[in-house]
Amino acid sequence: MVTVLKLGGSVITDKDRPETVDSASVDRAAATIADSPVSDAGLVLVHGGGSFGHHRASKHGLSESRGSADATTLLDIHEGMGELNDAVLASLHEHDISALPVRPLSVGFRDGDGRLSFAAGQLEAMLAEGFVPVVHGDVVVQTGQGGTILSGDEIVATLARSLGANRVGLCSTVPGVLDAEGAVIPEIRSVEAVADSLGESETTDVTGGMAGKVERMLSLKTPASVFGLEDLQTFLSNGTAGTIIR
Amino acid sequence: MVTVLKLGGSVITDKDRPETVDSASVDRAAATIADSPVSDAGLVLVHGGGSFGHHRASKHGLSESRGSADATTLLDIHEGMGELNDAVLASLHEHDISALPVRPLSVGFRDGDGRLSFAAGQLEAMLAEGFVPVVHGDVVVQTGQGGTILSGDEIVATLARSLGANRVGLCSTVPGVLDAEGAVIPEIRSVEAVADSLGESETTDVTGGMAGKVERMLSLKTPASVFGLEDLQTFLSNGTAGTIIR
Repeated sequence: MVTVLKLGGSVITDKDRPETVDSASVDRAAATIADSPVSDAGLVLVHGGGSFGHHRASKHGLSESRGSADATTLLDIHEGMGELNDAVLASLHEHDISALPVRPLSVGFRDGDGRLSFAAGQLEAMLAEGFVPVVHGDVVVQTGQGGTILSGDEIVATLARSLGANRVGLCSTVPGVLDAEGAVIPEIRSVEAVADSLGESETTDVTGGMAGKVERMLSLKTPASVFGLEDLQTFLSNGTAGTIIR
Repeated sequence: MVTVLKLGGSVITDKDRPETVDSASVDRAAATIADSPVSDAGLVLVHGGGSFGHHRASKHGLSESRGSADATTLLDIHEGMGELNDAVLASLHEHDISALPVRPLSVGFRDGDGRLSFAAGQLEAMLAEGFVPVVHGDVVVQTGQGGTILSGDEIVATLARSLGANRVGLCSTVPGVLDAEGAVIPEIRSVEAVADSLGESETTDVTGGMAGKVERMLSLKTPASVFGLEDLQTFLSNGTAGTIIR
């Protein structure tokens, strides 16, 4: 049984202050994962960019569709994400989780139409050996564009498919997808049904915000949950929490 | 036309002093590559571990066949190699070479028989976009072993095959494979013919030394050259230098 769990960039960083890890939240997530049997049963972690990724991407004018052919530009974003990845790994190791980094620039790429290839054999080998791969939003090379941004959400969707994940969770700063009154929508089956609620993201997010998230998760066979850090334990125990997108 | 060029760990580090980059040699290699048309025509760089990889691997008792299931042990070796990779990338960027890191732990893995899988689509995409991928000796996950060492030489052999390389070069601290009198052997066609000359490596090398190098290169379709840094320019111009192994 494989669980793909994303820790949102806004959860693990202070998204309004550049390059600031939210150590308390990272530690809380790591402790919750360590207390759950899921880390022994096949867990892939993905984390977003938060204040390490989005500011650098914006500064350079990069997005999922707009690239750069300059290696030092791509490396600047990649290194920022590497620092955040190091912090997440260190916290997981403190909680005795056998986490190993998997860096998308080293493995993924897009063709000229933007279609992502992301080999997953190394992830399956890691899972079989009891490791927890920790993947992150990054830059990847794209034919005709140099390199473009690859969001944590796209990684989640891609790996959920290629690994045949049974459980997919997006741990966010909100307790679920919220309606116009701010209440958690229990279930979403189409993006149209909730279009009014999915306005703009509150801070710099070059990768689509909540509307993009919902659309991506609707494309999966496996139901995906969007929930807050306070419901991470519920998700890891039950397989669902917050808003269920199916 | 694809060239796979390895910069030996002994060339780019002081192999007798832990964690010491030989900055002058790295800079000289980068300058030579920058002056050559090969960096525009498809160049994959691979570098060895030198004093960043071998000491850490020895300390933990890891080799190509003996692994560890401890994530922090694997990460210690991986991080050491990451520091060396950063130094190599920085020097290449100073010489305006569009270098991007490709980290084997993120992409490669071995099955239970030790057979390496190393997806190469991202490398082809990088080459097509004019980037120079910089790969390095590393740890990779191996079924039944946790993780084991993957040498730069094995990466060279694997990528030369999967990328259909036209040129393969191993830049070493010696001007070629030397005979018992210390003279460069111009050509090697079998390991037996030179067995007497291929004794022990002079310093800590967990990945086989010169005999292993020769054996691996003999298994390739493409002739491979072993040469010193002073012949790097010759290799990049002519496609061969030093000792030719075919």
